[in-house]
Amino acid sequence: MTVTLAIDCMGGDHGPTVTVPAALDFLRHDPDCSMILVGLRDQLLPLLGKAEAEFGPRLTIRHASEQVAMDEPIATALRNKKDSSMRVAIELVKSNVAQAALSAGNTGALMAISHFVLKTLPGIDRPAIASVVPTLHGHTYVLDLGANVDCQPEHLLQFGIMGSMLIAALESKERPKVGLLNIGQEEIKGNEVVKRAGELLKTSGLNFFGNVEGDDLYKGTVDLVVCDGFVGNVTLKASEGVARMMSAALREEFNRNWRTRLTALLTLPVLNAFKHRFDPRRFNGASLLGLKGIVVKSHGSADALAFFHALEQAALAARNKLPERIAARMAVSSASV
Amino acid sequence: MTVTLAIDCMGGDHGPTVTVPAALDFLRHDPDCSMILVGLRDQLLPLLGKAEAEFGPRLTIRHASEQVAMDEPIATALRNKKDSSMRVAIELVKSNVAQAALSAGNTGALMAISHFVLKTLPGIDRPAIASVVPTLHGHTYVLDLGANVDCQPEHLLQFGIMGSMLIAALESKERPKVGLLNIGQEEIKGNEVVKRAGELLKTSGLNFFGNVEGDDLYKGTVDLVVCDGFVGNVTLKASEGVARMMSAALREEFNRNWRTRLTALLTLPVLNAFKHRFDPRRFNGASLLGLKGIVVKSHGSADALAFFHALEQAALAARNKLPERIAARMAVSSASV
Repeated sequence: MTVTLAIDCMGGDHGPTVTVPAALDFLRHDPDCSMILVGLRDQLLPLLGKAEAEFGPRLTIRHASEQVAMDEPIATALRNKKDSSMRVAIELVKSNVAQAALSAGNTGALMAISHFVLKTLPGIDRPAIASVVPTLHGHTYVLDLGANVDCQPEHLLQFGIMGSMLIAALESKERPKVGLLNIGQEEIKGNEVVKRAGELLKTSGLNFFGNVEGDDLYKGTVDLVVCDGFVGNVTLKASEGVARMMSAALREEFNRNWRTRLTALLTLPVLNAFKHRFDPRRFNGASLLGLKGIVVKSHGSADALAFFHALEQAALAARNKLPERIAARMAVSSASV
Repeated sequence: MTVTLAIDCMGGDHGPTVTVPAALDFLRHDPDCSMILVGLRDQLLPLLGKAEAEFGPRLTIRHASEQVAMDEPIATALRNKKDSSMRVAIELVKSNVAQAALSAGNTGALMAISHFVLKTLPGIDRPAIASVVPTLHGHTYVLDLGANVDCQPEHLLQFGIMGSMLIAALESKERPKVGLLNIGQEEIKGNEVVKRAGELLKTSGLNFFGNVEGDDLYKGTVDLVVCDGFVGNVTLKASEGVARMMSAALREEFNRNWRTRLTALLTLPVLNAFKHRFDPRRFNGASLLGLKGIVVKSHGSADALAFFHALEQAALAARNKLPERIAARMAVSSASV
C-alpha cells in the first residue's frame, strides 16, 4: 500500500542534517512510500541537492517558515507558531495529504499540537505515548510514557486497548498479552487506581495477563505493559540510567591499565555484539496514540539510522491503519458498557 | 558504644545456615556488639556447635517456637504467630533488650509486625522502607520502596526527613542533598501530589535540591531520592531487571563460540571487577524508618556476606541513635508548622 509521510525536518538536535538523509534512505528502501519534507526550504534544498535527490510525486518539499525550539514552552509552540514545521507536518495528516507525521522535536509541543490539530478518537479521553524497551531476545511495549501523570482506572484501560492495537498493527499479533504494572502479582496489591484498573482490564476482552512487576518489563513476560505516565516515565529513565551506568563502569574497568586495555581489544567483537543488542537506535520511535491520525516521535538526539527506524514504524502504522483499529476497538468497548 | 542486635535467624530463603554464620562473623568483626539469636533452639544449637561458638554475654539464644513463612499472609503472621522468631526479635527491641532487630523474612509481615509492636514515632503517619542503589562511584538512598502506595504530599515530606536522618546516622553526612523523583526538572511538572510535596520540601529546612528524574538515581545527583512506594518499588525492580538482562546478554555473547569463550577467560579479571562494583550483596539491608526502634530487612536470598552487610548497617544505625534523630527532627518540623 502506498503511504505518504510528512516529516518535520527541522526537529531534533541535528535538524535536517539527520532527517533529510534518513528520509532519502527510506525512500530507496520502501518503493511504495512518498515523503513530504516540511521545513525551511533554504535549509532543505542544499541537502537534497548534495544528495542528488530527484523531486517528483514521491518527494516534495513543503516550506514552513517557523520552527519549534527543543526547549520552547508548549503554550508558545501551540499558539504563536502556526507555521512551524511541526504543526504543518501534523496538518498534512489532518487534511489526509499524508498518512503519518514524524518529528524529533520537543515532545510536549508535539503532543499538544497533535492533540489540538488532530483531536482524540471517540471514547479516548487522553492521547498517550507508547514505546518499546528491549528484552533479552525481543522487546516489550510500554505506555504511557509521560503524557498523562494523573490517571484514572479508565485511562489505564484505554492505554491497554490502544497498546494492543499498536502491537496488532506493527507486529501482526492479534491478541497481544497485556500486563498491568504493579508492585506485586497478587490482585490485592497496588494503589487504588491500579487495583480498579485491573478489574476493568480483566473484563475488557483484551488478552489480560494480570499484574506484572518492574523487572517483567525486561523479561518479556507480556507484550504490553500498561502504567500511568508518571510511573512509565520514571521507570524508563531509571532503566536508561542503569544501562548507562553499567556501560560506563565496563568502560572504566577496561581502561584501568595497559593489560585491561589489551583485553578490551581482544574482546572488541563480543563488546560490539553486546552493544548492538541494546542499541537505542534500533528501538527509536514512540507512537502518539489515541489521535485521529498517526504521529511518531523520534528521539531528539536520533541519528539517521535511528530516524530511519522511526520512519519504518510510521509507515507500518499507516499501512495497518492504526487509528481505525483503535477506533473500531473503542466502539466495541463502549457498546459493551 | 556497645549494641545488642536481635536476629530473626529463621527468616530468609536459607534460614539459620546463612544467618548464624553471618552473626558469628560479625561478632568477631565488631567487638562491641552482642547478639541474641532468635529461633528454634534445636536448629540453632548444632550450627553453633559446629562453629565452636562460645556462649556468654555477647552471644545468647532466645528460643522462639514459630516462624513466619516467606509467603505467609500478613494477617496470619501478625495475629496467629505471637511466638514467631520475627516477632520475638522485634519485641526484644521494644523492651530495649536489643537496640536493633534484623530479619531476612517476609517484608510485608516484617513491616506489619514492626509497626504493630514498636509503633510509629510522633508525627510519622506511616513507616517507610529505605535502601540504596549503586552509582558509578558511590550510591544513592531511596525511599519509599513499597510500604506506602497511596501517598499524600505530607508523607513525601516525612520520607525526606526520615531519609535525611538515616544518611546522617549511617554516613555522618549532616545535610544530605534531597531530590524529589519527578518526570522533569521544571517545578510545573509532575502529578498533583508531587507538585505539592515539592513545595513542602522547599520550606522544610532540609537540604532540598529540587526535582530529579529516573536516571538521576544512578548518576549520584543527590544523596537521597524521595518517592511514593509504588513508584519506588516499580523503579527499583525495573532497574534490577535491566541489570540482570544486561548481565545475561554479556554472558550470552561471551558464550557464543570457542573464540568468544577464550576471550572471556582472558577478560575474567575485568569482568570480576565489573561484577563486584554492582554486587547486590554489598548493598543489602533496607531500613524500616519511622518506628520507635530499629528494624533492618535483609534480602530473602541473602548469603552470609550480604547478611553481614545488613548487620553492619543495623549496628551503625543503633550506635547513631537513628530513631531519636528522626524524633528530634520531627519535633522541630512540627514546631515550625
